[in-house]
Amino acid sequence: MDDYSEGAHPQILEALLRTNSTQQVAYGNDEYSDAARQFIRDKIGCTDDEADIFFVPSGTSANLISIASCLRPYEAVITLDSGHIACKEAGAIEATGHKLILVPAVNGKMTPKLLQKAVRSNQFYPHMAKPRLLYLSNASETGTVYTKRELTELSALCKQLNLLLLMDGARLGTALCSNKNDMTLRDVHELTDIFWIGGTKAGALLGEAIVVKKALAEGFVFHLKQHGALLAKGRIMGVQFLELFRSDLFFELATHANRMAQKISAGFELLGYKLLAETETNQVFVILPQQLIRRLQDRFRFYIWEELDDDLAVIRIVTSWATDEMQVDKFNAWVQQWTVVCKEIEV
Amino acid sequence: MDDYSEGAHPQILEALLRTNSTQQVAYGNDEYSDAARQFIRDKIGCTDDEADIFFVPSGTSANLISIASCLRPYEAVITLDSGHIACKEAGAIEATGHKLILVPAVNGKMTPKLLQKAVRSNQFYPHMAKPRLLYLSNASETGTVYTKRELTELSALCKQLNLLLLMDGARLGTALCSNKNDMTLRDVHELTDIFWIGGTKAGALLGEAIVVKKALAEGFVFHLKQHGALLAKGRIMGVQFLELFRSDLFFELATHANRMAQKISAGFELLGYKLLAETETNQVFVILPQQLIRRLQDRFRFYIWEELDDDLAVIRIVTSWATDEMQVDKFNAWVQQWTVVCKEIEV
Amino acid sequence: MDDYSEGAHPQILEALLRTNSTQQVAYGNDEYSDAARQFIRDKIGCTDDEADIFFVPSGTSANLISIASCLRPYEAVITLDSGHIACKEAGAIEATGHKLILVPAVNGKMTPKLLQKAVRSNQFYPHMAKPRLLYLSNASETGTVYTKRELTELSALCKQLNLLLLMDGARLGTALCSNKNDMTLRDVHELTDIFWIGGTKAGALLGEAIVVKKALAEGFVFHLKQHGALLAKGRIMGVQFLELFRSDLFFELATHANRMAQKISAGFELLGYKLLAETETNQVFVILPQQLIRRLQDRFRFYIWEELDDDLAVIRIVTSWATDEMQVDKFNAWVQQWTVVCKEIEV
Amino acid sequence: MDDYSEGAHPQILEALLRTNSTQQVAYGNDEYSDAARQFIRDKIGCTDDEADIFFVPSGTSANLISIASCLRPYEAVITLDSGHIACKEAGAIEATGHKLILVPAVNGKMTPKLLQKAVRSNQFYPHMAKPRLLYLSNASETGTVYTKRELTELSALCKQLNLLLLMDGARLGTALCSNKNDMTLRDVHELTDIFWIGGTKAGALLGEAIVVKKALAEGFVFHLKQHGALLAKGRIMGVQFLELFRSDLFFELATHANRMAQKISAGFELLGYKLLAETETNQVFVILPQQLIRRLQDRFRFYIWEELDDDLAVIRIVTSWATDEMQVDKFNAWVQQWTVVCKEIEV
Repeated sequence: MDDYSEGAHPQILEALLRTNSTQQVAYGNDEYSDAARQFIRDKIGCTDDEADIFFVPSGTSANLISIASCLRPYEAVITLDSGHIACKEAGAIEATGHKLILVPAVNGKMTPKLLQKAVRSNQFYPHMAKPRLLYLSNASETGTVYTKRELTELSALCKQLNLLLLMDGARLGTALCSNKNDMTLRDVHELTDIFWIGGTKAGALLGEAIVVKKALAEGFVFHLKQHGALLAKGRIMGVQFLELFRSDLFFELATHANRMAQKISAGFELLGYKLLAETETNQVFVILPQQLIRRLQDRFRFYIWEELDDDLAVIRIVTSWATDEMQVDKFNAWVQQWTVVCKEIEV
Repeated sequence: MDDYSEGAHPQILEALLRTNSTQQVAYGNDEYSDAARQFIRDKIGCTDDEADIFFVPSGTSANLISIASCLRPYEAVITLDSGHIACKEAGAIEATGHKLILVPAVNGKMTPKLLQKAVRSNQFYPHMAKPRLLYLSNASETGTVYTKRELTELSALCKQLNLLLLMDGARLGTALCSNKNDMTLRDVHELTDIFWIGGTKAGALLGEAIVVKKALAEGFVFHLKQHGALLAKGRIMGVQFLELFRSDLFFELATHANRMAQKISAGFELLGYKLLAETETNQVFVILPQQLIRRLQDRFRFYIWEELDDDLAVIRIVTSWATDEMQVDKFNAWVQQWTVVCKEIEV
Repeated sequence: MDDYSEGAHPQILEALLRTNSTQQVAYGNDEYSDAARQFIRDKIGCTDDEADIFFVPSGTSANLISIASCLRPYEAVITLDSGHIACKEAGAIEATGHKLILVPAVNGKMTPKLLQKAVRSNQFYPHMAKPRLLYLSNASETGTVYTKRELTELSALCKQLNLLLLMDGARLGTALCSNKNDMTLRDVHELTDIFWIGGTKAGALLGEAIVVKKALAEGFVFHLKQHGALLAKGRIMGVQFLELFRSDLFFELATHANRMAQKISAGFELLGYKLLAETETNQVFVILPQQLIRRLQDRFRFYIWEELDDDLAVIRIVTSWATDEMQVDKFNAWVQQWTVVCKEIEV
Repeated sequence: MDDYSEGAHPQILEALLRTNSTQQVAYGNDEYSDAARQFIRDKIGCTDDEADIFFVPSGTSANLISIASCLRPYEAVITLDSGHIACKEAGAIEATGHKLILVPAVNGKMTPKLLQKAVRSNQFYPHMAKPRLLYLSNASETGTVYTKRELTELSALCKQLNLLLLMDGARLGTALCSNKNDMTLRDVHELTDIFWIGGTKAGALLGEAIVVKKALAEGFVFHLKQHGALLAKGRIMGVQFLELFRSDLFFELATHANRMAQKISAGFELLGYKLLAETETNQVFVILPQQLIRRLQDRFRFYIWEELDDDLAVIRIVTSWATDEMQVDKFNAWVQQWTVVCKEIEV
């Protein structure tokens, strides 16, 4: 169970099929990409003059290009130490020359206090790289979401501290469809300088849409090209995002994923298992007995997040648009059975 | 008319559809990618121990990753000044820190003499970056192909000069299916250190397969990841290459493209128009009157390669797996008609 | 009071004067540089075949070149979070493309346990940059020194974990002349892969000597050149290192600096002030009342290391070859007087 | 005979001696550096508000830092193919990520026509790196100088084409003291965006002074630090530039070098030897018989620039502030004697 184990949502594949034989201009200037951009702008509620939109094949591309495009060589990025760029991208940001300033997370998120401290302790001019950009993920690495108030505060602080704000939206769909969410795409756009909308984990075969405030968009395409992210057949991403955003498919799929996670999460809680973090989006972090984990591993696929001790570990379960509710019910039933019956026997 | 204007070959799309709902391991370790690698190795005639194969989303990715993976920071690349990395990739190689040493082409190709000279004139230690890798394209930028003898000589000279040899195979399919070709995939593998097989221009939606000699393959995946080229749903490339190489589809499509180019080319020659270079693969470079070009532009899409003077220009026509023979006939007829009839009137 | 506030030791300036008018080969191949290399090798007790020696103008050059020379693009450096490369070099290492993995210090130093943990928690292949080099400073950033046993353990662990070991020796002279030291230059050479001997803080106008194990030395000069560290008049560093190492000047100057630090340190302890860390080399970190600090600032120059609260702060005092013992006595007397007399009045 | 074979001019060494024992603030903020900056500004005739001045240890540092400081990652540098950054700096500019666009020289210099062509042929957006900076050397690599008219035209064209202009002034002293020169330091400042004044080849032990237009100076010190060019004892460069610019020493030394080159050059011409380029500064490029060259090599040091054939070669003789007029006379006499007498015998 992960949100990139399957291919694409059938409706998206169908769109690829339908549009396959038309001849299109290459390198992202095809009709589908243009239409997709327009639909995304419509959902945001912004004009062509406010933001440019670029499609790239992967989240790492989106992050490294966004960061490389707006920093000068001596400028640094502030990120949570659990941030994707900090520990899951093989040093991609440093490979473009930029230092990361690491901050510990509070409930998976950045706080104004942590941000202020990070900036304050990196001011020894000119011996320290200059903090210039705050990198956030929404949903966060542990599945939590930023509230409008939280993001507004961080955004205001960034302006005050002369920091740009980049939001990694690999799972932005589930964040915006979370019960905890009170933000619109428009809010995200207004409160950040660059943000990207994840397609890969939201039902597409590949592709992320980077939304860049106009002031930062000049020359952006060069960065795409230079980093190998400007696909000749850019239509492949255009068609998919068009399909996701021409209707509400993007949000419907995220809502389904969240609902499945809620169901799994509720199942665990009912049985008395503790969550590492509240389940706000499509990731469930639950503390389970190692015995149960071993049994579950025979039947289901998930990721062991952290070994706590000989008896307990945290597992991460990620749901998606493709998660079958019947499978979820079966999973919950299985966990319940083990907990109620087998547990007694095993011990 | 270009070889990246359409989507994918129907058989490839069909394969994506067929495989869509299986759950697969991410990041290139899915069953389809594994099977595709095996089929490619079979076509090469090499074992797992001889070469590793990696899929990346674009040709620029393939080039920059291949080069970054095997050079030390002070090492330079020798390339034709018309090389794709030299003038069509927005400085991607330099962005990874490496100097390009430029050499003028002879019939679109590198020669041992030019190579020797380039190395000799970059020996002022330690003030000059050290030549360490020869970058070639096959087919070349002007559509010509390397013969086995030519590549054997260059390869031997590389060994003697302590150079690695990288072959850009964005159009390798058409090269290997050219009438002028006398090489096998095995030859290419043996005579290079790294080469890549273009999928994007060969009927896939996206994807290039990099074949890396085992000695250079250690840590290669890190490079993919670091440059944003390790797709979560790596299956999307695996499935397509599987389809291209499980049968001879890859070669059949290239052969069709070449045949269409031959037909267009022959049409021009019959009417007395001069070719800039002999049509060896799927690119036709022909010198036409500007008047004819203007008329053609109303009806067909092609690329003006070079303005020669007020009267003449070179246009580039690129055929592909998708080029419709009826369209080609229509095109040829149209050119003939203009040449025989309209020309008189216009003048 | 710092160890780079003055110019050079008079004997060194005198050597520059004496050698000024001879004509020398440029770029580090002059007689003085050669002789200096030989004297350094003699002090180490190693042959030409064991190590190459390179002179660079600054510590940051030494670090960034050493690291860039031996890492592949996806490889990372493990360093204390207080390491010079981590917080005093403006992101120089990241600017060469390499990630830093940060580890908290124990008494200013790395421990095998911390190292092991850092490596273990950076193994998520290929999503994490690969740990490949341990960076240490000796003396450490807080003036402590590694014992032979400590370095031997770290060195053995590095071999086991396939890590290279680089020692930043900006203050290696004072480390080797510390009362706590039980290592020779030979030990340092044997237990590291690359180490450098600081000249700037040891009485030279500028210059650090990098000692590189032969296996890693190939192509090193290219790195010097590429990073602007290969001076045309390399003699300026050769002459100075020759003067420092032809006799025991290098060690005598460091010993003096250490003795002065001991004296200051002892003065503070006698008066009951607490040290942040034991004074092992030429840096004194002492916790003082803010009132005393303000008074001291009128008369002496030092660096406020950390504000503890409204009443207390840590100051750093750095002695050098140039520290005048009479000034030290005056300083101590002044502190004593304030402590015994003025303190009463002020409060 | 080269302009970096000796140490420093005696007056400069004397200044280092005189100032050695004062305590100074580190990292370029010492009194001497400040005073040197003021004297340079006075010679330029510009205020603090117009330009910032930074000292770096080498010409390669000056070039790579200047370029890295003002280009975005996808921007390229236009340079002569004989430019120092193109063939004598081991790929230093590419190592900071930037492409070089090479242009053949006319009399060692760039022309508006060449510049225009280079820009025009690098416009294939976004597949080509964007031309953004013109790099020139004055004196040029072959010792020629730019006239005010030439530089004015290039500067105007740069503005028109949205290019920055960087002048490498490794030998700016001899350029400005050339008989062919009609520019002042003020002109150079006004017509460029960044230029640097070479100290190493002008009598200093090391050091180049980069003059940066205010608009480009923000954050420049970070670049120095990041590239290891911010020396702790920055005074070593401050003191030397202070000495060179407090009086007219800088210009007097360059004038002497030029005069010596003229004398050597005239000697050759008198004897009928051909110059490769007119001797405009302190470099003489003369075509000599190989026999004479072999004889000269026994007695004098110079650089063989190019082998023309079995009989003839071009040698480069570089004079400096330290060139002894008596030696020059001896050299000329020796050449004359060989030409008149020995030649007959040898043949």
